[in-house]
Amino acid sequence: AASDSNMIRATLFPGDGIGPEIAESVKQVFKVADVPIEWEEHFVGTEIDPRTQSFLTWESLESVRQNKVGLKGPMATPIGKGHRSLNLTLRKELNLYANVRPCYSLPGYKTKYDDVDLITIRENTEGEYSGLEHQVVRGVVESLKIITRQASLRVAEYAFHYAKTHGRERVSAIHKANIMQKTDGLFLKCCREVAEKYPEITYEEVVIDNCCMMLVKNPALFDVLVMPNLYGDIISDLCAGGIALAEAVHGSAPDIAGKNLANPTALLLSAVTMLRHLDLHDKADKIQDAVLKTIAEGKYRTGDLGGKSTTTDFTKAICDHI
Amino acid sequence: AASDSNMIRATLFPGDGIGPEIAESVKQVFKVADVPIEWEEHFVGTEIDPRTQSFLTWESLESVRQNKVGLKGPMATPIGKGHRSLNLTLRKELNLYANVRPCYSLPGYKTKYDDVDLITIRENTEGEYSGLEHQVVRGVVESLKIITRQASLRVAEYAFHYAKTHGRERVSAIHKANIMQKTDGLFLKCCREVAEKYPEITYEEVVIDNCCMMLVKNPALFDVLVMPNLYGDIISDLCAGGIALAEAVHGSAPDIAGKNLANPTALLLSAVTMLRHLDLHDKADKIQDAVLKTIAEGKYRTGDLGGKSTTTDFTKAICDHI
Ligand SMILES: CC(C)[C@H](C(=O)O)[C@@H](O)C(=O)O
Ligand SMILES: CC(C)[C@H](C(=O)O)[C@@H](O)C(=O)O
Repeated sequence: AASDSNMIRATLFPGDGIGPEIAESVKQVFKVADVPIEWEEHFVGTEIDPRTQSFLTWESLESVRQNKVGLKGPMATPIGKGHRSLNLTLRKELNLYANVRPCYSLPGYKTKYDDVDLITIRENTEGEYSGLEHQVVRGVVESLKIITRQASLRVAEYAFHYAKTHGRERVSAIHKANIMQKTDGLFLKCCREVAEKYPEITYEEVVIDNCCMMLVKNPALFDVLVMPNLYGDIISDLCAGGIALAEAVHGSAPDIAGKNLANPTALLLSAVTMLRHLDLHDKADKIQDAVLKTIAEGKYRTGDLGGKSTTTDFTKAICDHI
Repeated sequence: AASDSNMIRATLFPGDGIGPEIAESVKQVFKVADVPIEWEEHFVGTEIDPRTQSFLTWESLESVRQNKVGLKGPMATPIGKGHRSLNLTLRKELNLYANVRPCYSLPGYKTKYDDVDLITIRENTEGEYSGLEHQVVRGVVESLKIITRQASLRVAEYAFHYAKTHGRERVSAIHKANIMQKTDGLFLKCCREVAEKYPEITYEEVVIDNCCMMLVKNPALFDVLVMPNLYGDIISDLCAGGIALAEAVHGSAPDIAGKNLANPTALLLSAVTMLRHLDLHDKADKIQDAVLKTIAEGKYRTGDLGGKSTTTDFTKAICDHI
């Protein structure tokens, strides 16, 4: 398509499994809502690209680098050697250092938990994901968890800035510094330093195991959570399990792929976040309202929410609301 | 007390915070149930014992080593340097390599989850708890996660043997081997080896983040879970939050200590497990029944379960049921 100067170019990774179906849903909704975005679609390659050492093509990474904004569907990480995980490659190559996953109750859809509205902000470039592992002697292996002052300050700054600009009141740093005094200790030290610059935001520290217990008992206790990589992986999934959904946390669900059964809500709300990032707040509101209304009405819901609708029916209902 | 030859000597660590109150409750219940146990009580010291490098006295460790059985209340780990964590010292010195935490719904006490009956078995001597950490350069620290074939086989063997001897059907190994291919990879390899010796037990592998999501959605999916140290720490607390209680997972609750408000159930059920370990099954059944009945009736419940009873009232109600 010829580039219209009023259009914003954004990269779209439909991903695999249910990815293409839910990406289709996003494209339709964006069209109906007249969102001035021109997608540059990139699929995961079928062979390893030597320039990225993974199934992600160099061109697809270049596309995000150039457009500076993109939307990503689920990507299964094939287990095996000789290539890097897709998600990890993306994070590293694009330096996506803060993984932000909002998590809230969907109005009108009853779950075990109501009134949840929290944001997990996960450091996404180091920690237990360093990739540094080796065998010390036969039968003894070790992996390195790396925490740096630079990356910790950066994600802490992100969290506090996010809290301040989004009307949030509290930032909780999640850690296990009673055991990992040096690594998690440094992470906390950096959070404290940043906290001092934001006296209007309450700062607290919660041990990871205790945090999980509290999240299951009463997730409404939390507001913004910031944490090292692995804890973020665990906690964002924990939240996604209990509450209706957390954005873009789900996988590629190969079991229902291609069957028109997938729920595109998470990707749609990710897309809404993307619109807010682009300051297209009116479009973001419009789409978010339509999604939430459709779910609240309950007439069209996909199987995971107890309904019988197909992906296309559900998408159509959202489009009708716009 | 003069040692009666029919009595079994067991070490009791009341611990701190609410520890002494709930330990008192256990002692009373044991007396009423005529349990042939003679307690050797050991408190946490007020100074560092150079022989243990912690606030645990050498004598207390010797006591458990000699008696080979003991019951431990909560112990807060004071944050600071120059001494080792109490829990870690106990685990290391006594080589407590498998931390077994049952987790089940209490009949008659409604929570968000019913029909939960799972056991977490946590490797308890290595992994992220190695204590090996250092600064690489200014602003860059690392901690080592150590996984050994020996400790992994040992805890896997424990889990499968436990499953087999307790009428359990399934063992799930929890891991993050898609990221920590070498360390968690070795852990899984060992679990698989042991699984082959137990063809009657179903074996599966679940990624830690996915496991947390499933636990929050539907904990009844799980039976026996075996995992490296940190994941066990997180998952056992997660379970304790959602379900009525998991044994001995709670902390020392300094906020309600000394107020006669603590719920002794977790320590009592730990004590029941200890009795089973000693093959005192009739006593174990008697006490367990009395505890569960008291809670199910609902007349005497402590504050954490929505009641107004004191620790002593609740204990008395249990004693009356025996
Ligand atoms: C697929 C996997 C590498 C990834 C992670 O561990 O970060 C996923 O669990 C996630 O949370 O995005
Ligand atoms: C207090 C702490 C050292 C301990 C641990 O992390 O193992 C506790 O959380 C536990 O689960 O027993």
